[in-house]
Amino acid sequence: MADDAHAGDGEFVSNDIARASSVRSRPLPLRDATVGQGFWGDEQELVRTQVLPFQWCALNDNVPGAAPSYCMHNFRAAAAQNRRRTAARSQGDRFVPPVYTDRGFNVLPDDPERPDPDRFYGFVFQDTDFSKWIEAVGYSLAHHPDAELEARADAAIDIVCAAQQENGYLDTYYILNGMDRHFTNLKDHHELYCMGHLIEGAVAYYEGTGKTRLLHAAQGFADYVASVFGTEPGRLRGYPGHEIAEMALVRLYEVTNERRYLDLAAYFVDERGRAPLYFEVEDRTRAKREGATYVPNDNQPMPYAYYQAHEPVVDQREAVGHAVRAGYLYSGVADVARLTENERLADTVRALWRNIVDRKLYVTGGVGATAFGEAYSYDYDLPNDLAYSETCAAIALVFFARRMLELEPKSEYADVMELALYNTVLAGMAMDGKSFFYVNPLEVRTEAVRSHDARFLHIKDVRQKWFGCACCPPNLARLVESVQEYAYTLADDGGTLFTHLYIDGMAVVHVLSKDEDDEDVALRLEVESGLPWNGHVRAVVHVDEGDGGADDYGDGHDGKISVPFIFAFRLPAWAGDQIEVAACTTVPAEAQGRVNRRVRDGYLYLAGTWRDGDVFEFDFPMPVMMLEANLRVSEDAGKVAFVRGPVVYCAEECDNGSRLHCLHVDAARVGERAENVTVEPFDFKAGAEALDGKGTGGVEPVSRCMVRLRVPAWRDEVRDAKPLYSRWHPPVRRRVEAVLIPYFAWANRGENEMRVFLDIS
Amino acid sequence: MADDAHAGDGEFVSNDIARASSVRSRPLPLRDATVGQGFWGDEQELVRTQVLPFQWCALNDNVPGAAPSYCMHNFRAAAAQNRRRTAARSQGDRFVPPVYTDRGFNVLPDDPERPDPDRFYGFVFQDTDFSKWIEAVGYSLAHHPDAELEARADAAIDIVCAAQQENGYLDTYYILNGMDRHFTNLKDHHELYCMGHLIEGAVAYYEGTGKTRLLHAAQGFADYVASVFGTEPGRLRGYPGHEIAEMALVRLYEVTNERRYLDLAAYFVDERGRAPLYFEVEDRTRAKREGATYVPNDNQPMPYAYYQAHEPVVDQREAVGHAVRAGYLYSGVADVARLTENERLADTVRALWRNIVDRKLYVTGGVGATAFGEAYSYDYDLPNDLAYSETCAAIALVFFARRMLELEPKSEYADVMELALYNTVLAGMAMDGKSFFYVNPLEVRTEAVRSHDARFLHIKDVRQKWFGCACCPPNLARLVESVQEYAYTLADDGGTLFTHLYIDGMAVVHVLSKDEDDEDVALRLEVESGLPWNGHVRAVVHVDEGDGGADDYGDGHDGKISVPFIFAFRLPAWAGDQIEVAACTTVPAEAQGRVNRRVRDGYLYLAGTWRDGDVFEFDFPMPVMMLEANLRVSEDAGKVAFVRGPVVYCAEECDNGSRLHCLHVDAARVGERAENVTVEPFDFKAGAEALDGKGTGGVEPVSRCMVRLRVPAWRDEVRDAKPLYSRWHPPVRRRVEAVLIPYFAWANRGENEMRVFLDIS
Repeated sequence: MADDAHAGDGEFVSNDIARASSVRSRPLPLRDATVGQGFWGDEQELVRTQVLPFQWCALNDNVPGAAPSYCMHNFRAAAAQNRRRTAARSQGDRFVPPVYTDRGFNVLPDDPERPDPDRFYGFVFQDTDFSKWIEAVGYSLAHHPDAELEARADAAIDIVCAAQQENGYLDTYYILNGMDRHFTNLKDHHELYCMGHLIEGAVAYYEGTGKTRLLHAAQGFADYVASVFGTEPGRLRGYPGHEIAEMALVRLYEVTNERRYLDLAAYFVDERGRAPLYFEVEDRTRAKREGATYVPNDNQPMPYAYYQAHEPVVDQREAVGHAVRAGYLYSGVADVARLTENERLADTVRALWRNIVDRKLYVTGGVGATAFGEAYSYDYDLPNDLAYSETCAAIALVFFARRMLELEPKSEYADVMELALYNTVLAGMAMDGKSFFYVNPLEVRTEAVRSHDARFLHIKDVRQKWFGCACCPPNLARLVESVQEYAYTLADDGGTLFTHLYIDGMAVVHVLSKDEDDEDVALRLEVESGLPWNGHVRAVVHVDEGDGGADDYGDGHDGKISVPFIFAFRLPAWAGDQIEVAACTTVPAEAQGRVNRRVRDGYLYLAGTWRDGDVFEFDFPMPVMMLEANLRVSEDAGKVAFVRGPVVYCAEECDNGSRLHCLHVDAARVGERAENVTVEPFDFKAGAEALDGKGTGGVEPVSRCMVRLRVPAWRDEVRDAKPLYSRWHPPVRRRVEAVLIPYFAWANRGENEMRVFLDIS
Repeated sequence: MADDAHAGDGEFVSNDIARASSVRSRPLPLRDATVGQGFWGDEQELVRTQVLPFQWCALNDNVPGAAPSYCMHNFRAAAAQNRRRTAARSQGDRFVPPVYTDRGFNVLPDDPERPDPDRFYGFVFQDTDFSKWIEAVGYSLAHHPDAELEARADAAIDIVCAAQQENGYLDTYYILNGMDRHFTNLKDHHELYCMGHLIEGAVAYYEGTGKTRLLHAAQGFADYVASVFGTEPGRLRGYPGHEIAEMALVRLYEVTNERRYLDLAAYFVDERGRAPLYFEVEDRTRAKREGATYVPNDNQPMPYAYYQAHEPVVDQREAVGHAVRAGYLYSGVADVARLTENERLADTVRALWRNIVDRKLYVTGGVGATAFGEAYSYDYDLPNDLAYSETCAAIALVFFARRMLELEPKSEYADVMELALYNTVLAGMAMDGKSFFYVNPLEVRTEAVRSHDARFLHIKDVRQKWFGCACCPPNLARLVESVQEYAYTLADDGGTLFTHLYIDGMAVVHVLSKDEDDEDVALRLEVESGLPWNGHVRAVVHVDEGDGGADDYGDGHDGKISVPFIFAFRLPAWAGDQIEVAACTTVPAEAQGRVNRRVRDGYLYLAGTWRDGDVFEFDFPMPVMMLEANLRVSEDAGKVAFVRGPVVYCAEECDNGSRLHCLHVDAARVGERAENVTVEPFDFKAGAEALDGKGTGGVEPVSRCMVRLRVPAWRDEVRDAKPLYSRWHPPVRRRVEAVLIPYFAWANRGENEMRVFLDIS
C-alpha cells in the first residue's frame, strides 16, 4: 500500500503524521475505554455473569465434582500462621513455624474430606488462581459497578494481605512449607510467577476501583524481590522459571512511576540465559544441600530452551520452549525495550515476532504446536490433529502483539492480535461460558480422541468444566474483560489515538490544553462496529469541554470548538491488499478541509482539527479468503482454509457428515477470489436445530447470530466393500456444499469431527 | 478366480484336490528346505557373515561403544552359583544363595568397569539374547556347516546348561536375584518369555545339529513350568506376560511328540484373560506381601489389552496391545487351534487376522501403528510419519501368517507374509548387515527427526548399530536364516507340497511307499526364482529313488518311475486379478496327460504322477500397481503408494530432492494401470553414485542389483518470498519424474527424507 498523502487545508502537515507513525504508545487508562453492546459486550457479559462467579467458587473449593483449588485455603492458612506469630511475639515468645518436607509440585490432602487447615495444597502456583480472578474483577468493576462483588473481592484481599510476610514475601507455598527454602528453585517453583500475577491483579484492581490495599501488598512483594535479586554482590542472580514478572513489573512501574520496578524487570530480562546459567547453578546447589548427585539436564541439545534460558535474551532470534512462558517473556522484553529505549532488545522482539508470524503461527492465531513441553515446535511444524495451541499461549501472543504495537504502530501486530483473539482465544470458551478448552486443535477425529492413544491424550472434542491446573479459563476471563485495552493505544505525546480493533464502545482522550490556564477538553470516540460479521464501522467524535471553556481551540463556522488531534485507524489486512483509502469517509471534516490523511504501516492517519459530531465511516471489504499455507508446512500441503474478516472458519461433522478428510474443496468452482462462496447469516441455535439425527448430542446450543459459509465442494463416496489397499481409481465423488462455521463456535453441538484445513482438489 | 478343473489323464481326481485344499500342513524339516543363491541367499549370507558374529560379541559384552548385554555374564554367574551349591553340598553344608532386593527391570552395575561376577545385570529378559542367537546358529548350521561356530555354540550351551536349577528352572534373573520371588510377576517379568525363546533356540539347534543337550535343558524348564501352572488345585493359574511360550511349546511338542507341552500351550491360551484376571490377582498379592497399597490399573478402558489379557482369548476379535506380543500370541493360538482341532480358536485367529489385514496393516506389511505401548492402534489409524511398525512386529506377523497357512492354505496369508518379509522385515536391516531399524516409518522428515520433539523420538532416519534392548536384530537374524521354513509346507497326509514363497533353492519331500517292503522315494523340487524383480519361476522335479528300488511306482514310457503327488503353488495377488492359469506350464507332464489342475483359495493345485525332469514354469505378471488406501484411512487420503510384485516402493530425498510433500504423482500420466511408469533395473551403488551433491552423506552404498521406478509426477515450486498464509493460487508446478526405490533399501545413503505414500494430483 503506497503511503499517500491526501492534500487538505488542515493545520497538520506530513511531518506531524510522520512523527505520529513512529511514536510509542500506551493503552488508554482502564476507565477511558469501554465496550458497548454487541459482540464483545456479549463476551464480557458471559465472563461477568458465568465465569467470575464460577471462578470464585473454584477458588474456595465450592464447585461440586471439581478438584478443589485450595487457593483461598492456602491464603487463610498463611494468615493464621501470621496471627500465631504475632500472638507469640506479644507474649515474648519466638514463633517457629512447622517445616514440612514433602513439598511436591502438586500436593493433595491424604483425606480430601479433611484437609489440614495449616497445610499447603495444590500446585506450587495455586496462589495465582486468586490473582487472575481479582484481575478480571478489577476490569469488570471499572465499567460495571457491583457492590456485592466488590465487597467479596475486598474480603478476599484482606485474607491475602493477612498472609503476607513482614518482609513483603507473599507465596503461600513457601510460607506454609518452610521459608528456609524460598527462592531455591526458581526454575520450577513459580514464586516469581506468583509475584507477577499478584502484581497484574493488584494493578487491575487498583485501576478498576482506586483501592490501594492489594497494590501496596504487591509492591511490598516486589520490593522484597528487588532487594534479593540483582547483580550486586551477595544477591541472587536468578530470574523467573515461568515468566510474567517482567511485564507485570513494568505495569507496576507505569502505575506507580517507581523506577525500581522497571529496573528489576530489565534485570530479569538482561540476566536470563547468561553464563553461568543460573538454573544449573541452582540445581547443583540444591543437589549439594540435599546430598544428591547432580544430574546434568543434557538429554536435549537445548535443555533450557523450555524456559527461554538457553542463551541471553538479547541474542534470541527463534521462539522456543513453553509457548505461554515465551509469550510472557517476549511481552516483557518489548515493554523493557520500549521504556529503556533499548534498540537491541527491540530488534530481539522484532526478530522473535517475525519467527513466530512467518514460521510458527497457526492460521487460527494459535501458537505452541507441540504438546511436548506445551511448546513452540521447529519452524513450519504446524500439525493440525496433534496441535497443542494452548488457549493461554494465544492469550500470551495477544499480550505480545499489543506490546509490539506500543513499541511501533504497525498493523501487522494488530492483525495477528485480532486473529488470535477472535479465533483461538474465543474457541477456548464454550458459547455458554461454562466450559473451556486448554488445547485448540485444527483437526479433530472423534475416534482418535476416544482411542486413549497417548498421541491424542491432550486433544479433547468436548470442552471441560474446569481444570485442576486452571490457567486457561481465568486467563481468558481477564483478557476478555479487558479487551478494550487492546483496541486503542494513545501516543506518548498524547496527540494520536490509535484504533487497532474495531469494537463497539467508546474511547476517551483527554487533550491537554496548550495554555496552562485553560481547561482540557476530552475527545470521545464513539464506535459502532459490524465486526466480525461485516466491515462497516462508524465512529463519532464528541468534544467534551471542561467547565472553564477552551479558549485556545479555534471556533468553527458553527461555533463549535475545533480540537487539533490525529486519529490513526488500522486498515485490516483481511480487507485485502487493495483497500481504498476511500473506504473511510470523514464528514464533515474533510469536506471542510480540516483533515490531512496519510497511510503508514497499515494505519490511516487522519490529522486534523476535530469538532463535535465529526463522523468517520469505514466500509472495509470483507471478502472470503481461501488461504493456503506456505509449501514448507508439510501438514497443510494440498489444503486450504477459509477466512472472512478476522474470523477463521471450520467444517464440523454435524454440518458436513463424518470423515471430513473425504470432503474436498472444489477450487475451480470456488474461484481464486472465493467469489462463489455463499456468505450466509444464521442463528447458531437455529442452524443446529436444522441438523439431522447426529445433531447436537444433547447439548443445547446457544442462540447467537453469526455468519456461515457455503463452499462448493466434493465428497468422496466411501465404498464399504473396498479392501484396505486397492488399485487406484479416479475417485467417485458427488458435488456437495461444505458448510463452514466460525472456528470459535466449534464443539458447541456435541462430540464432533472438525477441520480447519480442508483438502482441495 | 474361478476354481477351474482342467481335465487330464492323471490318476488324481478333483476330490483329491478338494481334500488337499482343506488339509493342514507343516513346514518341511529344517534340512529338507534349502536356500540357494540369489536374493535370499544374499540375505542369509549377510546374516551369517555379519550379524551372527556381531551378535556373539554383543552377548559377551565385546562390542566397543555398545551397551553391554551381560547375557553370558549372567549365565556364568548362575553356573558359578550352582557350583558353589554343589561344593557346599559335597561338604554336607547347606548353600544359601544371596538374595538381592534391587530387582529392577533393567539393572546396570554401579561401576561399568567392574561388574560384580555374581550379580544379574541387564533387562529381565536378557537371557533371550542367547536364545535368539543359538536359534539363528541352529538354522545356519543346518545348511552351512561351520565347525568353529558349532564349537563356540556348544561351549555357550555348556554354560547355559550349567546355570539350570535342579528343578529345571532356567531364568538367570531370578536365579541370581533370589528364587523366593520367581513366578510372582508374570505380567512384567518375562520368565515364561525366556522359557519360550529358550525352547525355540533349543529346537532349532537340535534340528540344525542333531544335538540334544540344550533341547533337554529346555524340556526340563518346560516340565517344571508344566508342574507349576494349570487349573489343578494348588497350581498357579498364570500365563505369560509377554507371549511366545505358546508357540514355542507347540514346537517342542512337535519335535518331541510329548503331549504335555501341547497341553501346557493350550492351557496358557485358554486361561489368558479369564476372570478373575490373573495379572490383577498377582498385583494384589505382590502389593500385600510388600505391604504396599494396591493401585488398580484403571487409567484406560482396557488396561490389560496391552497384554492381550483384557478378555478370554477365544472371545477376542480385535488385534490390540503390544504388537509383538499380539503376533506371538496369535501364532500360538493358531498352532493350538490346528493341533487340538479347536474350531472356536480357529475362528478367533481368522477374525484377528481379518481385523489386522482389513484395518491395521501398513501397505509395507508393518503392524503396530502407535509408539505408545508399541501397539496396534484403533481401526484404520495408520499414521505414516509417526508409525511405530516395529521390525519385530512384522516378524511376528510372518509367524502368524505361516501358522494360518498351516491351518488352511489360503494365499492371502502368504501374500501378507511375503509383503511383511520383503518390506518391513528387510527394511529393519541395512544393506551391509551392520545396522538396524527398530521402527519403520512410512514417511520421514529429517527436520522432525532432528527436532527432539517427543512425538518423533522413536523415529530414526539412520539405522542404529545395536540396541540395549536388542530384540529386532537377532529376531531378524533368526527369521532370515530360516526363511525357507516359510516357503513351503507339507500337508499332514504327506501328499501335497505347498509352495508359498518363490525362493531360489530346494525342497525335499519323502514320499512314503504304499508297500511296507519298498523303499521310499524323495521328490526334490529345485526352484529358480526371479523374485522379487521378475515373476519368472522355474521348478524342476527330481525323483530320487531309495537303494532298494521303488516297485510300487509305475514306470513311464521312458522307464522313469512315476510318483503320484500334488504340488500346490501360490498364485500371488500382486500378479493381478486375472492371472491366467496359463501362467504355469508343466512339461512334459501335462502334455502326457499326467496332471490335473485346479485353482483353490489362490493356489494352483497340480495333481499328477511325477517323473524326474518334469518342469514347472511360471511367468507371473509383475505389473506396477498404484495403490490407494481405503478412504477410512484419513492419513492416506489423496495419496498413492507404488508396489511391484512383493516390493513396496518409496521416494527418497537423495533421488527426488527435499520436501517430498511437494512431489505429486501425476495420476493422469501414470494411467490407472500404471502403464506409464518406467521399470528400470539398476545397481544400487551406481544409482547412488549418480546422485548429486546431497548424495550419500559419507555412507558407502552396497552394490546390489535391483529395480527402481520412474513415475510421472509434478513438483511444486517453493516460492521463498511467500508468507506463512496467503490467498490460494493454482500451484506453480513443473513436470518431473519421481524416482522410487524399494522400501527395504531406504536409508542406505545417509540421512534422508522418505515417503511411501505420495500425494496425487
